[in-house]
Amino acid sequence: MGIPDKVVNRLTLYHFILDDLRENEEYISSTKIASLLNIDNSQVRKDIKYLEDSFNNGIEGKCRVGYNVKNLKLKIEERLGFKQTKDVFIVGAGNLGSALAKYDSFKDYGLNVLAMFDKDPKKIGTVINGKEVFDISKVGNLVQRLCVESAILTVPREYAQGTANYLAGSGIKYIWNFTTCILDVPKDVKVWNENLIGSFLQFTNNEKEEETKNDNRN
Amino acid sequence: MGIPDKVVNRLTLYHFILDDLRENEEYISSTKIASLLNIDNSQVRKDIKYLEDSFNNGIEGKCRVGYNVKNLKLKIEERLGFKQTKDVFIVGAGNLGSALAKYDSFKDYGLNVLAMFDKDPKKIGTVINGKEVFDISKVGNLVQRLCVESAILTVPREYAQGTANYLAGSGIKYIWNFTTCILDVPKDVKVWNENLIGSFLQFTNNEKEEETKNDNRN
Repeated sequence: MGIPDKVVNRLTLYHFILDDLRENEEYISSTKIASLLNIDNSQVRKDIKYLEDSFNNGIEGKCRVGYNVKNLKLKIEERLGFKQTKDVFIVGAGNLGSALAKYDSFKDYGLNVLAMFDKDPKKIGTVINGKEVFDISKVGNLVQRLCVESAILTVPREYAQGTANYLAGSGIKYIWNFTTCILDVPKDVKVWNENLIGSFLQFTNNEKEEETKNDNRN
Repeated sequence: MGIPDKVVNRLTLYHFILDDLRENEEYISSTKIASLLNIDNSQVRKDIKYLEDSFNNGIEGKCRVGYNVKNLKLKIEERLGFKQTKDVFIVGAGNLGSALAKYDSFKDYGLNVLAMFDKDPKKIGTVINGKEVFDISKVGNLVQRLCVESAILTVPREYAQGTANYLAGSGIKYIWNFTTCILDVPKDVKVWNENLIGSFLQFTNNEKEEETKNDNRN
């Protein structure tokens, strides 16, 4: 069963916190997590309870001491599937595409960039952080050969819809869309819009509201 | 009064759609917007009603024809403040920082990158898309001189907390955090976590659930 998106988002943030703790910190309280994220304590407890319920054995904890760091970390990793590698293509080897190809943190969370694609002859054949850039016309062939269904779309806005059509026709089923174009795709293709502009506007919208929470996307 | 974050996010996506329409498309229906984003029609109408209520005069529309594109676009721009420039610094002139500095779409939405900072002598003094990279030690001075309160944090994870401390001490009040480190900052500093890993996990979580919506962050 899928986990609600907001819970996935928060569990990832909790994992960042756990990952930063030193070896000798064995327990962490929900209060500490909540305080770092500026969210409600009860929200943290609810999310961890949700995680707990998906396992037969619960998350180890000690009364008034908190959650066992190692155990909670492992459960989040297991539940969110950090160990199950998900292969993706990056389509668009420009600035953002290249930065994402070089973003090594992705690997720790199961994201594996297999190859990149572009239509610029100067970029085709180059290798970015170990990922070769192929001619976009090779997508269909490589989708079949490598059984890849997901693509990160980082082409310039004016090419976004055309490229999405092409990806859909090539067998790509999931598009993580970093462009500011809303894609009109066939029903069997799912799009996840990474809305950086919206994030920025929420961030600055925050500036006006002092009482707003740190992680108020959730 | 601030707008709820989810509404800000969706209004931005509606704006992307309106922005893509050709000159001769005078009206757009809520059904069309909803279908492109794979969300409920009623959600779109509710958001636009919300926008409408914040103006004395409503959004022009024609029964059974839809919203006036130009008018709706302008109202979103006005309400979300696209014309009010917000000056920011980018701290960390690595791959992601540089890609964001080159991301020209930001400008259309009011984000103005005034300068960049790094501690790498090889980067200091270089100019990325017209933005000079300064020594990080200059942040305090430039925060004062240019009255900048917001920073985009794109340093490597291991330097994130130290840099955040330094930024807070220099007078930065708002941090848009692209690192995977959860920042422990003084109460008067607000952090907005751009959780790309969480986005990716939500995106792949989606793969398992066929019935999930396109833009289900909202």
